[in-house]
Amino acid sequence: MSATFRYAVNVLPKAGILDPQGRAVEGSLGHLGIEGVSAVRVGRRVELSVAAADEAAARAIVDRLAHELLSNPLIETATFELLMATSSAVSGGSSGASSGGSGR
Amino acid sequence: MSATFRYAVNVLPKAGILDPQGRAVEGSLGHLGIEGVSAVRVGRRVELSVAAADEAAARAIVDRLAHELLSNPLIETATFELLMATSSAVSGGSSGASSGGSGR
Repeated sequence: MSATFRYAVNVLPKAGILDPQGRAVEGSLGHLGIEGVSAVRVGRRVELSVAAADEAAARAIVDRLAHELLSNPLIETATFELLMATSSAVSGGSSGASSGGSGR
Repeated sequence: MSATFRYAVNVLPKAGILDPQGRAVEGSLGHLGIEGVSAVRVGRRVELSVAAADEAAARAIVDRLAHELLSNPLIETATFELLMATSSAVSGGSSGASSGGSGR
């Protein structure tokens, strides 16, 4: 019996790290006539599915992916959240959605 | 009396739109010895602060930003969520966090 879990990994530049994309967005606000927007940080969002025996096993895989492949821990922070869980069991099983984040 | 709202805007390629970054991530999984990961989509996450009279006004600004500046509606979907609300009122006021998404 296994299940499929859909996660979102959010990667953002650490506080104090230069964020030229964020500055570019702030610089464009005037052209749109938008006021009151500040502290823009631009990062990445990666959504992926993990097939695993249970959520702990899936979470371990996503944790490794988030910190070894999808982010540079020196300059970025990575957190992830569970978007959806789908059981592929033939009899019974559960499906649902919950969310939580983890960073290091 | 005004307040500051922190939002996250999530931008992802629409279903059916080619996602070369997602393919690249999937291609790298073998080198890491990671199995069971599929359907990788790579997008952007933008976090920003909005100073506005109330949450409805802030939400209108973020909605415009998300769809006019931060995403290309032809090939990407943009959703946003409220991360934190901070009242800057001198007396009383409320602060807290809630979340919700909006896309179009």
